Amino acid sequence: MVTFIEPSSRAGRDAGAIEAALAELTRAFGNRLVTSQIVREQHGNTLTWVANQPPDAVVFPQSAADVQEIVRICATHGVPVIPFGTGSSLEGQVNAPHGGVSIDVRDMNRVLAVHAEDLDCVIEPGITRKALNEHLRDQGLFFPIDPGADASLGGMAATRCSGTNAVRYGTMKDNVLSLKVVLANGEIMTTARRAKKSSSGYDLTRLMIGSEGTLGVIVELTLRLSGIPEAIASGICPFPSVEAACNATILTIQSGIPVARIELLDELQVKASNAYSRLRLPETPMRFGEIAVEFGGGPFEWATQAEERTKLWQARHDAYWSGRALRPGAGVFATDVCVPISRLAECVTATQRDIAESRLVAPIMGHVGDGNFHLTMTFDMADAEEVARAKALHERLVARALAMDGTCTGEHGVGQGKMAYLEAEHGRPALDAMRAIKRALDPDGIMNPGKIVSLA
Amino acid sequence: MVTFIEPSSRAGRDAGAIEAALAELTRAFGNRLVTSQIVREQHGNTLTWVANQPPDAVVFPQSAADVQEIVRICATHGVPVIPFGTGSSLEGQVNAPHGGVSIDVRDMNRVLAVHAEDLDCVIEPGITRKALNEHLRDQGLFFPIDPGADASLGGMAATRCSGTNAVRYGTMKDNVLSLKVVLANGEIMTTARRAKKSSSGYDLTRLMIGSEGTLGVIVELTLRLSGIPEAIASGICPFPSVEAACNATILTIQSGIPVARIELLDELQVKASNAYSRLRLPETPMRFGEIAVEFGGGPFEWATQAEERTKLWQARHDAYWSGRALRPGAGVFATDVCVPISRLAECVTATQRDIAESRLVAPIMGHVGDGNFHLTMTFDMADAEEVARAKALHERLVARALAMDGTCTGEHGVGQGKMAYLEAEHGRPALDAMRAIKRALDPDGIMNPGKIVSLA
Repeated sequence: MVTFIEPSSRAGRDAGAIEAALAELTRAFGNRLVTSQIVREQHGNTLTWVANQPPDAVVFPQSAADVQEIVRICATHGVPVIPFGTGSSLEGQVNAPHGGVSIDVRDMNRVLAVHAEDLDCVIEPGITRKALNEHLRDQGLFFPIDPGADASLGGMAATRCSGTNAVRYGTMKDNVLSLKVVLANGEIMTTARRAKKSSSGYDLTRLMIGSEGTLGVIVELTLRLSGIPEAIASGICPFPSVEAACNATILTIQSGIPVARIELLDELQVKASNAYSRLRLPETPMRFGEIAVEFGGGPFEWATQAEERTKLWQARHDAYWSGRALRPGAGVFATDVCVPISRLAECVTATQRDIAESRLVAPIMGHVGDGNFHLTMTFDMADAEEVARAKALHERLVARALAMDGTCTGEHGVGQGKMAYLEAEHGRPALDAMRAIKRALDPDGIMNPGKIVSLA
Repeated sequence: MVTFIEPSSRAGRDAGAIEAALAELTRAFGNRLVTSQIVREQHGNTLTWVANQPPDAVVFPQSAADVQEIVRICATHGVPVIPFGTGSSLEGQVNAPHGGVSIDVRDMNRVLAVHAEDLDCVIEPGITRKALNEHLRDQGLFFPIDPGADASLGGMAATRCSGTNAVRYGTMKDNVLSLKVVLANGEIMTTARRAKKSSSGYDLTRLMIGSEGTLGVIVELTLRLSGIPEAIASGICPFPSVEAACNATILTIQSGIPVARIELLDELQVKASNAYSRLRLPETPMRFGEIAVEFGGGPFEWATQAEERTKLWQARHDAYWSGRALRPGAGVFATDVCVPISRLAECVTATQRDIAESRLVAPIMGHVGDGNFHLTMTFDMADAEEVARAKALHERLVARALAMDGTCTGEHGVGQGKMAYLEAEHGRPALDAMRAIKRALDPDGIMNPGKIVSLA
């Protein structure tokens, strides 16, 4: 099979060190340490399209103290640790290219406190966003970040996730007040107090958000909550062209209309969603929108029935699966870029031309209110020539976004899939600064190595 | 004269190194390098109450390349550099406790680009917020962060400033898309692209925001802009007690009313503002509020005339000066803390009791929507016993805020004034992480040394 991104070599690993670490971990964690091939492979790649890179073992901690012990044991033996939430990341963040121990936080899933007056809550990292919102609903509160997948909150923070609601509510960086993080030396660092704002020293919270486990393992989060909107109106709107849809979006946002989310689907994605989610949308570029109002608010022309809205947004959230269903059995590589919104129409249109020339099946959808869009490339992984065309399309997509002052990833993160583009995006001084920070906080390189920045 | 915070010793400085650096700087910058006593002292303390600590020279760069040259020359000789905006910071951030060269960016004040479609602009660091908003007004846009003082945007980013509008618009961390920063090695780092969001690597933008020049000198900012609200209503509301005012605020925010700012003034501050700003407000705890609506919006009962609003907010912005005017000639020490909003009433009330017991004249005002409040302590600097009482009051204020899961500074920053409290607030692992980052990015300790974290 041809691979899209070559897995790193595991050469040079010290088998004796891993054996010694696993022996100690077994003594400490008993059957919560698992080394079966199937569980290791389940943790070796998930929705990503990077080839499977299983860890040497998976451990299921139940507390921050457990995570400290795991990290301390692994640090003693120089063995990598890889935090694992639900495995819904897309760029190989949870794979183990250098082996080591996957720390699966699924059992650390408690809500530790809800402070309704302060609009915040304290949780463990393994709870998923749907479970958290279920817990909060009775109090009229919710956590607004919604990446589609029912991801763990720890993983969402680690990836600086955003999703459909970012237009109104921002991304994870805007909705986390504080983190507790186990550092490479096994100590627990608290990044901030529960106050709504602070000017007290370096912003360690934001440094950890988006660091994908390469600087530490998140073991607790204090999240900023929002009131459930009083009124929500959703609607869909067909447009003659992607450009028309983008221009309408720019106007909408400039007018200050309280839009929560605006999603763009190109013709092919509408077709895929019609097939997969049994909708009957006209197969032209389409905008899904949602206005959420907490106070006052003008007249809405859109549909507001909850059932209808749910069906619409479920279809949107299933877009990844609908894309896969376009070519059953094919390889799927979901990638994203983000550009200034003024360049979005141009970027999407040029990408559509490029897809046509590449002779690939690759629908586009996007969080058009942020200038962020996704390309789901499907291809036959047995066909080296088709894989090569997909790789080239991906390269050109990133280059196009960067040329428009955009970023190589708006929300999927770097993982292994986007490492090659960081220098082109950020320049050498910024990349050197990232490396210096990585070295400063993880001098032995045991925290999720082989992701974001390489120290080699 | 007694000092509130002892200036660091300048012992151990290498006079030869400074002389050599100044000679090189003079060759490069001619009369844009100033060493007169008066200019050095103007840059040695401003609104802060830390004793004057003049730099050895002040230089006025006109470009990012100028700043690079200054930093390179100073780095060669191991001489500190201290970025300087308008000097309105309050915790000794721009003082030169270890001497060195103050980099005054007042001449780097151009608007480089306004991208109205993308709601952003690119500016130099020396432009002030009023000048920027003047420039933007014709396009219906504004930059919402408003600390009261007409500060430079570079300084506002360096201090992670927030101010009255933070309830609605967030702080500097939420409104800066990207920075260009001259690092200790003289290289220019760009922290991010102009895309609205990104998951591409460590969040260098947020790391620089609030770092007070200790990691680099900001030479360019890309700011997120907002539409000027269609409708603004301001109002004042007297309350029988601080607690009643705080509780009303909690309810207001929970209801999702689109409040832009809610300010609390205690009885003494109302009295001070009445005297200084010629108002006739009843002298009870008072809330200033402002609702800003960009779209739709309910009926307002408050005053909406621009003239009235301006007078009100000018009085609020002049609160620092009105506090000073309570005791002409006295020392003034303005400090701030921030606590979870559910603890605010308790914190303010306990602080008022403490002030009474301390026999000091010290009005309180606050950004009550954020849980952030200010204490303006006035005292006779010649009276060692009164200074000691003020110091003790300050210590207890910070301890009280920390005990309530708050922060030692919501928006003034650390500078020199709050360094002593960082370990109590953040714990040793977080402080060690800050030190490791400082060492990683500024190994020779030339970037604004003696602020935030000490490496000694």
